[in-house]
Amino acid sequence: MDDLSPTAGHHPLSRRQLTVAAGTAAAATALGLSAADPAAAAPAAPPEAPAAPCPPRSTADWATCLAVARALLVVDDDNKPLVPTYEKILDSGLPRPRTGGGAKKILVVGAGPAGLVAAWLLQRAGHHVTLLEANGNRVGGRIKTFRTGGHEHAAQPFADPRQYAEAGAMRIPGSHPLVMRLIDQLDVERRRFHLVDVDGEGKPVNQAWIHVNGIRMRRAAYATSPRRINRSFGVPRKHWDTPSATILRAALDPVRNEFSTVGPDGKRVDKPMPERVRGWARVIQRYGDWSMYRFLTEQAGFDERTIDLIGTLENLTSRLPLSFVHSFISQSLISPDTAFWELVGGTATLPDALLGKVGDQLRLDRRATHIEYWDPDRAADGDTSHVRPDGPHVSIDTVSEGRDGKVVRERFTGDLAIVTVPFSGLRQVQVSPLMSYGKRRAVGELHYDSATKVLLEFSRRWWEFTEADWKRELDAVRPGLYDAYRQGKAPADGSLLGTHPSVPPGHISPAQRVHYAANRWASREQPEAAHIIGGGSVADNSNRFMINPSHPVSGSKGGVVLASYSWADDASRWDSFDDDARYPHALRGLQQVYGQRIEVFYTGAGRTQSWLRDPYAYGEASVLLPGQHTELLAAIRAPEGPLHFAGDHTSVKPSWIEGAVESGVRAALEVHLA
Amino acid sequence: MDDLSPTAGHHPLSRRQLTVAAGTAAAATALGLSAADPAAAAPAAPPEAPAAPCPPRSTADWATCLAVARALLVVDDDNKPLVPTYEKILDSGLPRPRTGGGAKKILVVGAGPAGLVAAWLLQRAGHHVTLLEANGNRVGGRIKTFRTGGHEHAAQPFADPRQYAEAGAMRIPGSHPLVMRLIDQLDVERRRFHLVDVDGEGKPVNQAWIHVNGIRMRRAAYATSPRRINRSFGVPRKHWDTPSATILRAALDPVRNEFSTVGPDGKRVDKPMPERVRGWARVIQRYGDWSMYRFLTEQAGFDERTIDLIGTLENLTSRLPLSFVHSFISQSLISPDTAFWELVGGTATLPDALLGKVGDQLRLDRRATHIEYWDPDRAADGDTSHVRPDGPHVSIDTVSEGRDGKVVRERFTGDLAIVTVPFSGLRQVQVSPLMSYGKRRAVGELHYDSATKVLLEFSRRWWEFTEADWKRELDAVRPGLYDAYRQGKAPADGSLLGTHPSVPPGHISPAQRVHYAANRWASREQPEAAHIIGGGSVADNSNRFMINPSHPVSGSKGGVVLASYSWADDASRWDSFDDDARYPHALRGLQQVYGQRIEVFYTGAGRTQSWLRDPYAYGEASVLLPGQHTELLAAIRAPEGPLHFAGDHTSVKPSWIEGAVESGVRAALEVHLA
Repeated sequence: MDDLSPTAGHHPLSRRQLTVAAGTAAAATALGLSAADPAAAAPAAPPEAPAAPCPPRSTADWATCLAVARALLVVDDDNKPLVPTYEKILDSGLPRPRTGGGAKKILVVGAGPAGLVAAWLLQRAGHHVTLLEANGNRVGGRIKTFRTGGHEHAAQPFADPRQYAEAGAMRIPGSHPLVMRLIDQLDVERRRFHLVDVDGEGKPVNQAWIHVNGIRMRRAAYATSPRRINRSFGVPRKHWDTPSATILRAALDPVRNEFSTVGPDGKRVDKPMPERVRGWARVIQRYGDWSMYRFLTEQAGFDERTIDLIGTLENLTSRLPLSFVHSFISQSLISPDTAFWELVGGTATLPDALLGKVGDQLRLDRRATHIEYWDPDRAADGDTSHVRPDGPHVSIDTVSEGRDGKVVRERFTGDLAIVTVPFSGLRQVQVSPLMSYGKRRAVGELHYDSATKVLLEFSRRWWEFTEADWKRELDAVRPGLYDAYRQGKAPADGSLLGTHPSVPPGHISPAQRVHYAANRWASREQPEAAHIIGGGSVADNSNRFMINPSHPVSGSKGGVVLASYSWADDASRWDSFDDDARYPHALRGLQQVYGQRIEVFYTGAGRTQSWLRDPYAYGEASVLLPGQHTELLAAIRAPEGPLHFAGDHTSVKPSWIEGAVESGVRAALEVHLA
Repeated sequence: MDDLSPTAGHHPLSRRQLTVAAGTAAAATALGLSAADPAAAAPAAPPEAPAAPCPPRSTADWATCLAVARALLVVDDDNKPLVPTYEKILDSGLPRPRTGGGAKKILVVGAGPAGLVAAWLLQRAGHHVTLLEANGNRVGGRIKTFRTGGHEHAAQPFADPRQYAEAGAMRIPGSHPLVMRLIDQLDVERRRFHLVDVDGEGKPVNQAWIHVNGIRMRRAAYATSPRRINRSFGVPRKHWDTPSATILRAALDPVRNEFSTVGPDGKRVDKPMPERVRGWARVIQRYGDWSMYRFLTEQAGFDERTIDLIGTLENLTSRLPLSFVHSFISQSLISPDTAFWELVGGTATLPDALLGKVGDQLRLDRRATHIEYWDPDRAADGDTSHVRPDGPHVSIDTVSEGRDGKVVRERFTGDLAIVTVPFSGLRQVQVSPLMSYGKRRAVGELHYDSATKVLLEFSRRWWEFTEADWKRELDAVRPGLYDAYRQGKAPADGSLLGTHPSVPPGHISPAQRVHYAANRWASREQPEAAHIIGGGSVADNSNRFMINPSHPVSGSKGGVVLASYSWADDASRWDSFDDDARYPHALRGLQQVYGQRIEVFYTGAGRTQSWLRDPYAYGEASVLLPGQHTELLAAIRAPEGPLHFAGDHTSVKPSWIEGAVESGVRAALEVHLA
């Protein structure tokens, strides 16, 4: 299997391209070649040396920066895009190897999107695949929908059995080609996700709230008249009249100029490919070691108040100490210009569809505890720990959770394995013999971060109300209640919680009611009706980001609000609570922004997800630290003998389904052609 | 109460000194004066401008850096040490105010060491104190001993009812004057804590293990022959023969030279006081914005492999992205030269003693949910939210946990309050009206970090064994077992778990046994007996730091090992697990270092503490981010009208009891003299 033939209906794929897909260009570093080793740096350095002046010191050489740029842009060593190849593989399957091979026995560890995609492709190509999943009842990883039933046979999560909401991935950028291709190929139904709130005709109106420093203002109003809010942060006069997003964009534009240009219509256009790669490599070489905090202070020259303004409104504060490059990539992606999509019935409909393809290969409730492997290449080099003349090259011990009383251990064997476990979880799995230094270091040190969601169910979509709607619905609770709330005279003791006739009884216990009363929002001031569909508000309270559903759930007048979506330190503030303690606090933060009166529609049903506290996920995603792109990426992706690695953390799009799918295709290719 | 008289048995204390104790010098920034405001910067800037060249840009002005240095060194605006004053207060009580005053009604929120000390001092001075604690059964905060009974009436945590172990604070540096004074004044019994392991005569021998990159070596052997381990990290040749601690010390020495000199005996001596303050201020001005990662790359010029070596052995890796200054201070403190102490019976004997003083003032099971305050000064300025002509100036709503079924709300009122709640927890408490921008920002953004401990009980202190001890004890399990372990022939299926005759039955369920078997350490190689007392080993496995008890528990042949003590990202890897899942993993990591045979003494009883998952602590401690010392410290400590703030996070010694005690004395002084 040293070469590949272009086959009918397939596409030419060279061995060299394949190794690039596996990140091998950069893997030189991981394999122990020093950064100064000419063999590692030589291939690309002379013709592509950076044009822009670089800071006096960078820990990464140019070849490594190029390799990271190529991984980010998903191109091969010749800067040729790999996405068309991957799309064809999703459409028509893996290419037929020219020589040798035949069916292999492959273990795939982890049934998140990366594992599901890899297992599906390998099975279609005729391999014997076993897909191991630690969860006892669910696939999908950090795609997880709180819903009734589903393949996971979940108990009803909300008072209305039709309601569902996302614990994890909830919005898919249209600019992510592989996941979009997968969705459409599997006939999964999608519709627009409104990052910005819309009116009844679906037109973006940007009327959600900003609530900071005691000031409440519509987002659209802030965009045109930012002074009052900006001054409340104490920013210098030069920033009084510029919205935070514009201040930030101006600071980032010089960085974007490295790989894109502004077209005649004012929109950014990526530079053509070789220069685009070089531009990104320059960004990585210059800022790869930097935190976002350092960029904003030293490069942008911002004072601490301006950083606080931007951080609070643009969701950067909690990640200031983390990698500039990581946040810069995210910041470039999630903008009002990007079209986002959601899946009808929940994001879990995507794993549902994949499960339909690989269900026979799946073993649920099998947590890997020990991975043993034998690497003939290393055995040939005299590494006695790798001597295993016969038999399978991978053996994986697993244990069940013992949900039905009995804890079961089971061993699986294969010729090759694809490990998709997040490195934060792999850290707790024995792998023997020792993997390479670079891999072990990456497993131990790759930073994973928190993200926490608190979801609250309401029997009416009050955020879509006009004042007339409010008057009608509140007076249906009891005559005069509308005015009582507006005048700050409605009781603030929680007695009105869930009192609208549409709220089904039985979800709020007396003890809960006391907790709600104790944690109620104390101010009585009532803002005007939000009157928005979708979109979300931002506050400097602990809720931080509050996101409304973009569409009604068919047949239901209610809706589930993402009352708090927070990251990193903001999320840690929630993670300290037990689940039950989060709901009253989340309702309070929502009331601070929207007013006390929303309480009448609260059904008492909430769901929450702390990804860092999840024993299957071990974090929201890898969010890299300064330096980790250049120090760890190559080692993260490199195979270790018969062990191959996939998962969003092996891509340069961690936390995105796109990164998981891309890695699943790449790893499937690797083991298919191994 | 504008002035104070020196009274008999007391000490002179000027109003100016008092305001410094409250951090007022730096509070100018918090109160909204810009950094460039001459009024804020003028008092100290001209005579004390930094002598050393500064980097082109720093976000902090000199006055702010001086204020941080003074808070760190606990000196007043005239650079006069405050510790002697504080020590006298601990001995003899608060000074008698010259004028006005009389008894005030004071609420203290939080019964950790800061709150306990403040309540005790204020009550001794004749004030009416109420001490509110969210915990239903315990005071002490992050001083928490797993023990049987105690003031918290705890259920027996280990198989041996005499055994106890620390969930939190476990070692007290002798260089911390206030906590040492408090311990001795309260007649709490202390003895040495062996940071470095000792022999039978109590002489440090440093024979604990280092286990990294598959290499196991005694610490003392590494100190003299570091090459094998250093090369396993791939460090450059110039670092092959230098132990990690020495490499790090050399990098930090130029920073230490700012405030100390090397004496003729080779030991560091602090510079005399004014220059010492200026030296620390220079350090803060130069590096206050830097992460430890940035310092090690840019200032020390280290490559990533050397940083990984130092980070792994010296426990810096998980905090690389955090403040250089924070880690630098810790690094200066915990060294083999510092004498550490522990409290006989557990660190909780200190809160026990304080509880004896303030028990009548304590209200357990009262979690603050809403703090309202009225500030006459702000009301006089026309701030209508602060108008409250009569009545108390502070009102605090609380809620109980409802342990006995009924959830209770209760309101407390006072003239003044001391809030000791960690800011990570205060973030979830309503405070109205809005506090100052600086305070709110500090509450929202002060970084709190994880620290997690996993403790395992053994029926024998096997780490103290010689090989002869091992042979005797293992052959008591069954003849030949000693040799079987040494030859790697003992069964590795967990069947030997807890089989020594000394292990009491009943603590390992069949299901647990399967989990232990599944997660067992797979390698069969058996190292020689550790034969050490106290001290601790370090590994690059997920356990990271393993610490032995310094002393036997009276009457018991067993002991509780701190099998894993980890911080930040290292701790997050444990926090994702449920408690029960941690013990098999912690035992495995311990076996990797000490060998499989330790399993026969495992009683099956473990305890674990994730401080970030603790709903009373909300984190291990504030571990500052780059820039936060200069940006937040003044605002952290500044009063807000009648609200004063204490707790270790208000000192520059977060996570240390010393910082908590210091803050408790300072805050008690503030409200006493307010």
